Amino acid sequence: MKDLSVLFGRKLRAKRKALGISQEKLALLTEIDRSYVGRIERGEVNITLEKLYQFSEVLQCDVRDLLP
Amino acid sequence: MKDLSVLFGRKLRAKRKALGISQEKLALLTEIDRSYVGRIERGEVNITLEKLYQFSEVLQCDVRDLLP
Repeated sequence: MKDLSVLFGRKLRAKRKALGISQEKLALLTEIDRSYVGRIERGEVNITLEKLYQFSEVLQCDVRDLLP
Repeated sequence: MKDLSVLFGRKLRAKRKALGISQEKLALLTEIDRSYVGRIERGEVNITLEKLYQFSEVLQCDVRDLLP
């Protein structure tokens, strides 16, 4: 299941970069600590459903687009 | 965001019942404590991505079907 967090982190990073949003900006918009966003993108965190929806809201995409 | 956990819990319960699986069986199959499955279905828990995938695997459905 560890891969799941890694796969999700990659999707999050790709979506963020596609929108030209920095990690700092994403952290600011989601009110999550920047270093924690970094850990999530590196697949070091098994995020919750609420965080998943928070990201999809800020990145203005369907939550399903962020799922591996 | 609390609603999210409630909405997810309802979807999980509906899917479980549609398959005729008891809460005990779902708990057994996912190796999650039965009372915790009950709390998840009542929307009292903000589950993780890994748990979400665990449920979709056991209920043999696309993880997207469980998302509110």
